[in-house]
Parts: sequence; structure tokens; C-alpha cells
Amino acid sequence: MSQAIKQPRIVKIRENVLKKNDMLARELRKRFQENGVYVVNLVSSPGSGKTTLLTEVLTRLSNKYKTAALVGDLATENDAERLEKSGALVHQITTGTVCHLEAQMIEASLKQWNLAEIDFLFIENVGNLVCPSSYDLGENIRAVLFSTTEGEDKPEKYPTIVNSADVAIITKIDLADAVEFDKERFYESIYKSRPEMKIFEVSAKKDEGIDEWIDFLIKEKNLLGGQSIN
Amino acid sequence: MSQAIKQPRIVKIRENVLKKNDMLARELRKRFQENGVYVVNLVSSPGSGKTTLLTEVLTRLSNKYKTAALVGDLATENDAERLEKSGALVHQITTGTVCHLEAQMIEASLKQWNLAEIDFLFIENVGNLVCPSSYDLGENIRAVLFSTTEGEDKPEKYPTIVNSADVAIITKIDLADAVEFDKERFYESIYKSRPEMKIFEVSAKKDEGIDEWIDFLIKEKNLLGGQSIN
Repeated sequence: MSQAIKQPRIVKIRENVLKKNDMLARELRKRFQENGVYVVNLVSSPGSGKTTLLTEVLTRLSNKYKTAALVGDLATENDAERLEKSGALVHQITTGTVCHLEAQMIEASLKQWNLAEIDFLFIENVGNLVCPSSYDLGENIRAVLFSTTEGEDKPEKYPTIVNSADVAIITKIDLADAVEFDKERFYESIYKSRPEMKIFEVSAKKDEGIDEWIDFLIKEKNLLGGQSIN
Repeated sequence: MSQAIKQPRIVKIRENVLKKNDMLARELRKRFQENGVYVVNLVSSPGSGKTTLLTEVLTRLSNKYKTAALVGDLATENDAERLEKSGALVHQITTGTVCHLEAQMIEASLKQWNLAEIDFLFIENVGNLVCPSSYDLGENIRAVLFSTTEGEDKPEKYPTIVNSADVAIITKIDLADAVEFDKERFYESIYKSRPEMKIFEVSAKKDEGIDEWIDFLIKEKNLLGGQSIN
């Protein structure tokens, strides 16, 4: 196949793009740290409940902290509209046909805000368990969400996203019994590649585990320090 | 941003790769037709129930037809193992970090089989609602699956996959009430871009709608004809 001849060249250019992304992500990370912004990158497949969980988290955090959210989708502004009800600053990034967010999209979106006035920035990535794993967005922490309805084998089947994440969150834990979710097998599936990974179990609908997740983020932010003016 | 300078070049090379894919897909389509093989490409997000539905479909079809399945995943052979119980010929394609199947992967996998002895070939794509939309695999029909647990807004949020598909299937319809799935809104979400799209509603667990889906495929295959020796 002649396609094989082209492939090294594509790979080379992709590497350049990724490298540029990494350099820009590094700059962003520095800016976030200088301004005391703690940044969370949420990745998952479509429909795992990122927006529902995030709405709840933003609403609770907004009592004490200044929060913001950037939301990635191929199309529609639905998620931004849902998130705005929380009182957070919200901006939707529509990516067209691009299956992930990139550092330059984050940088461009930040221009509208004064970073020094933000404590927590949540980035809701495009619903995809493959592409977002390769793009550093300058975040402090990357959380991969898996819903009980997706089945317990997903961490094994999408190892790149698990390997690039810092913590895992099981969503829709209230549906575990209804969909016969095998929790033990799920933990095994994560631990196979990440034996020490911290795993949260949440249900936004039944208010389970959300405070633990928020407390963890606040603790992580405090450990990190930074020059927040709030 | 200097990244912008590089972009046209990447796009150009991607176009070449896609074009090569399309040419190979056209050859595959011709081979399938000559051998009387009806080919279904299943696309969806991770955990929508592709494998569960396919196992059921293969089991029922295998009574009267010779069936085969190619299954794409980044890693693991779990799906192939599950599908093999149906009595179909099964081959797993592990893509590493590639977020979709390509025509050349299909061509390479077919070498082990005699196409003239196959009536139905199902291709289970990598779980992803973005990337697979761009890659023709020579299939007769592309079905996009959405599970009730993913929520009713997904067709709007992933328009490229809806636009590239021929039919849509709502899976896990038995969970619709438990997850408060708004079916009317889902249909609207599809019809917004595809007003005439055929939509199936199935539950592999409760045996709902599967025979309708199979009958449709058999009818489509018969309409198409081909020189099956079976």
C-alpha cells in the first residue's frame, strides 16, 4: 500500500502540532499558577454525565469561590446554557469536526476573562475517550469520567485516556444495580494500568459523592497555593 | 499563532489519506457486492451497547445465514470473545491509539476469510462519535447507535456522525424511564438534520425491536441482490 509511504510524514507533522500544543499548555499552566487558578480538565465519552455533575459542582463551589467553565462540543451551545444556571462564568467552544480541545482554543477563550478573579476553572472536553488524551490544556488535574451505564470494561478498552488522567470518577452510581454494573471488575479494569489511581463514585441525581469530589479539589488547590486575590 | 501556518499542510495530507481510504473503500464495496456480502458499519460512543446488540443479532441471523464480524478497539480482545459465542466468524482489530477503523484495516482482516461464503458482515467500529464519520469502510449501511442513558441531545451535539449515517438505533430502550429519557426530544434532535431518518428502538436485554432491525437488514440485502452461493 502506497499509504504507508505517507504515514511517517503525517506522524512527523502531528508531532510538531502536539509539541506546539505542549509548549502553549506549559505557558497556560504558568499563567494559571500565577493567578491562583486551579484548573480541572474533564474527559469522558458522550453522555457520561459531565455537564450534570459540573453544574452541581459549580453551584456548590460558587458560594465560596469564583468559578468559570469552558465547554467543548462539536456543535450546539446546550451545555453552556445548562452550566450558566450555576452562577459561574461560562464559555462554549464549538470545535466543528475536531474531536478534542487544544491549548490554543483555551488560550483564545480566556481573553474575555480576568484570570486573577477566578479560583476554579473547569474545562469540559469534547465527549470522546480517545483524542483528548493527547492534548495537554495546562490543567492541574485531569479527571476521566465513566458512567455505570457504559459497562465495567471501558478503562481496559481505552487505556490511553486512563493513563493520561490523574483521577477517575464513576458517574450515575445510582443506576449501578439497574444496569448490573460490576464495580469490582471496574476497579480491576482501572488498577490493571493504574494500581494507585484515586476513584470517586458520584451521583448528581441522588447527591452521592459530590462533596467528597469538591473537598478533594479544594484541598488540592490549597496544597498548590498560588497568588489568588480572592 | 504560527500553528496556523502549518494547518493547511496537515489538512492537505489528511485529505490525501481520506481520498486513498475512499478509493480503497470503493474497491471493497465492489468486492462485497460481487460476493453477495451485505455489510453493516456500527458506530456509537463507548458503552452504548454495540457488542450486546450485535451478539444477539449474530446469534439470530446465524440460523439461516453465514455471518461474520470485525470488531475495532484500541486495546483488548474482550469484544471478539463475547461475539464468538454467537457462532459467527469474528476477528478483532486493535487500533492502538487510532480512534476509528480505516478501509485498509478492513481489507487486511478480510484476507483470512472466503468472502463468497459470507452473507452478512458486521463491522463494529471504535467507540467514538467523531472520528469514524469520515472513514468509508465499503459498507452498505452505516448505523449510528445512541443509548437512552446518554441523553436525548447527542444527535445535535455530534452532527457529523448523524449526517454520515443511514439509520439510527436507540439502544437500552428498557432503561428509558429510569434515566428519564425524553424520546420526543431525541427524535427532534435527529430530525433537525435528517428529517427522514429511519430510527429503530431496541433493547437486547428485554428483547425489544431486535427482530425489526434484523428483518430490515434481510430486506435490504435481498433488494440489493448479489451473487451469494449460499
